[in-house]
Amino acid sequence: MRFDIITVLPALLESPFAHSILQRAKKKGLTEIYVHNLRDYADNKHKNVDDYPYGGGSGMVMSIGPFAACIGKLKEERHYDEVIFMTPDGEVLTQTAANQLSSLKNVIILCGHYKGIDQRIRDLFVTREISIGDYVLSGGELPAAVLVDAIVRLLPGVLSDETSALSDSFQGELLDAPVYTRPANWNGLEVPPVLLSGNQAAIDNWRHERALERTRERRPDLLE
Amino acid sequence: MRFDIITVLPALLESPFAHSILQRAKKKGLTEIYVHNLRDYADNKHKNVDDYPYGGGSGMVMSIGPFAACIGKLKEERHYDEVIFMTPDGEVLTQTAANQLSSLKNVIILCGHYKGIDQRIRDLFVTREISIGDYVLSGGELPAAVLVDAIVRLLPGVLSDETSALSDSFQGELLDAPVYTRPANWNGLEVPPVLLSGNQAAIDNWRHERALERTRERRPDLLE
Repeated sequence: MRFDIITVLPALLESPFAHSILQRAKKKGLTEIYVHNLRDYADNKHKNVDDYPYGGGSGMVMSIGPFAACIGKLKEERHYDEVIFMTPDGEVLTQTAANQLSSLKNVIILCGHYKGIDQRIRDLFVTREISIGDYVLSGGELPAAVLVDAIVRLLPGVLSDETSALSDSFQGELLDAPVYTRPANWNGLEVPPVLLSGNQAAIDNWRHERALERTRERRPDLLE
Repeated sequence: MRFDIITVLPALLESPFAHSILQRAKKKGLTEIYVHNLRDYADNKHKNVDDYPYGGGSGMVMSIGPFAACIGKLKEERHYDEVIFMTPDGEVLTQTAANQLSSLKNVIILCGHYKGIDQRIRDLFVTREISIGDYVLSGGELPAAVLVDAIVRLLPGVLSDETSALSDSFQGELLDAPVYTRPANWNGLEVPPVLLSGNQAAIDNWRHERALERTRERRPDLLE
């Protein structure tokens, strides 16, 4: 799967894409991630990509020209399944949406900044608007990194143990049960004995009960 | 406000904290962000910080020892208002929670990885568990960066225009109205004439109507 991310702050995305599973997925050839500097597509000598909002008000608005130029160039090179704009007023990202997006081939992601982007960019180019949650961030870069991470870890072959992603919270509609590792006793705090029992049926049952209990306590909405 | 982030992948967080408003807020002395490498607190020569889960199953579990050592050292140095664990089964982050967190002084953030962290870390040290949304990521680093970004931009003096954060989506319970900037006509696509009218009352009225309309269409839940 290929991601083309358009941003005014490409440097911000350097380290998230250079580590962990994103780096491994790139090395294995399972994903390609390209970060494009919007300023390279500015149509003025000052490389400005934003301007004052029509009608007044605080904050700057990103202009249509540079986005149009960058998206246009990319679309000449290949077909894109979606042009996604990261925005707090988009559809809220869920695991179901991440699963669905992980079946796509080529995706463009636009990162906003300042007070927003010219509405005509959204009307003309954007096919899907995604929010990572009901809070405001300083730009779309971290949300883009979150979206890419959520998708890439689902691509076949990315996680070393394929069962790992399937047993995550939200894949089975229940939150995960508590997990424990060595030592069995840490300063008097003990691991639940059933986990040391070797009785796999009892362990599976305990885990299911705890997952159900935790979901009931924390996220009853997931059980509806 | 001071953040101490404990992670097994400190390098992943380098670029998000070195750019944009986080960098400016640090330079202005409005926030301090320290990233601690969990491996420095490993109690074995291989610097392992995780181990197999008791009771079997896929994925590795992060051990209690290194977290306990790092948190213990930090707590000797100062008082912390919260020890936050980033986890998909935590309370879902909202703008209201970000507002509230921005009034704190010192916060520790724990980043999980692999299949999770030993439950005893959560029972013993964690005072608040936060999720950035209903999806699974490869680790807690991006969520930690998202949380810090959401909070820091609310600190007084961080945004150059103080009205800017207050007029964001979610601060006024409505999504933002569409925004436009020059040119007024782009390949035949025109800016709504009211925004060019100079009639501020009409502009304010148009913006409120559009904000209401967008909220009704996209997020009727926010109007309830």
